[in-house]
Amino acid sequence: MQIMFKKRHSIEEVEEGKYLSPKFDENELIPVVTTDYKTGDILMHGYLNEEALKKTIETKEVHYWSRSRKKIWHKGQVSGFVQKVKEIKIDDDQDAVWISVDIGDGASCHVGYRSCFYRSIPLGEIENEEKIKIKFTEDKKIFDPKKVYKDEPNPTKL
Amino acid sequence: MQIMFKKRHSIEEVEEGKYLSPKFDENELIPVVTTDYKTGDILMHGYLNEEALKKTIETKEVHYWSRSRKKIWHKGQVSGFVQKVKEIKIDDDQDAVWISVDIGDGASCHVGYRSCFYRSIPLGEIENEEKIKIKFTEDKKIFDPKKVYKDEPNPTKL
Repeated sequence: MQIMFKKRHSIEEVEEGKYLSPKFDENELIPVVTTDYKTGDILMHGYLNEEALKKTIETKEVHYWSRSRKKIWHKGQVSGFVQKVKEIKIDDDQDAVWISVDIGDGASCHVGYRSCFYRSIPLGEIENEEKIKIKFTEDKKIFDPKKVYKDEPNPTKL
Repeated sequence: MQIMFKKRHSIEEVEEGKYLSPKFDENELIPVVTTDYKTGDILMHGYLNEEALKKTIETKEVHYWSRSRKKIWHKGQVSGFVQKVKEIKIDDDQDAVWISVDIGDGASCHVGYRSCFYRSIPLGEIENEEKIKIKFTEDKKIFDPKKVYKDEPNPTKL
């Protein structure tokens, strides 16, 4: 792969400069947030490595780094729910990426919901309880994961 | 601190259960994305530790874990731009948090822009170039960081 990123020479260049100088973490990954360009809802939080970022820019379809499978993951290859890129943004210190995507009427969550963020945490004083109850905010699944993923291993890790 | 999180016993409980069972990473942090509840725009990407998550739930004002300063960071303490929590969501495998906030007419970025994501990456084939030019999408700063932060160290690290 050709050198496509500017070296991080100064804080001013990183924050106010015109060139892409992403910072990958100790695992060579950068976190990415994907939102639905129509609703603004967050669909997923994931990670990119250098190759995944490049493929996403070039193909205009989101490629993540799968930490559970340890490989590039072209989202939608199995489920059909490809994420078409509308815009990619980088943050101030260039250590996080925001991708706005079009998923049509599809879903982004391997559990079957449209968004991975389908449960809400109650606010306010936590009483003398052991557990916090969370509330479902999506009431139906877009697809049945058992039918779509069949024997694929579940990416959720304990 | 009292035990407030359910232990992660099974994948089904984590994904479809009713209790908060967040997964903190090897640095005892969980990534968090903060959005403007009015526009849906992503304002910041940051991290929470257990204490920061608890304080955010209880006080309804966002408290991050500052990786550069290695301490709890009540956002807005210096700048005045407190982030008032409208909703907190957790994702499918409970290893990422989404907080929707009200910042009024304020800003969330230490560089002075409303959002930390003020630059866009061009899409399509990367030509035989060394660097990718990024484009500013916000045209004016909400505040002057030199006046607001004075001698505070810049959190951006090379």
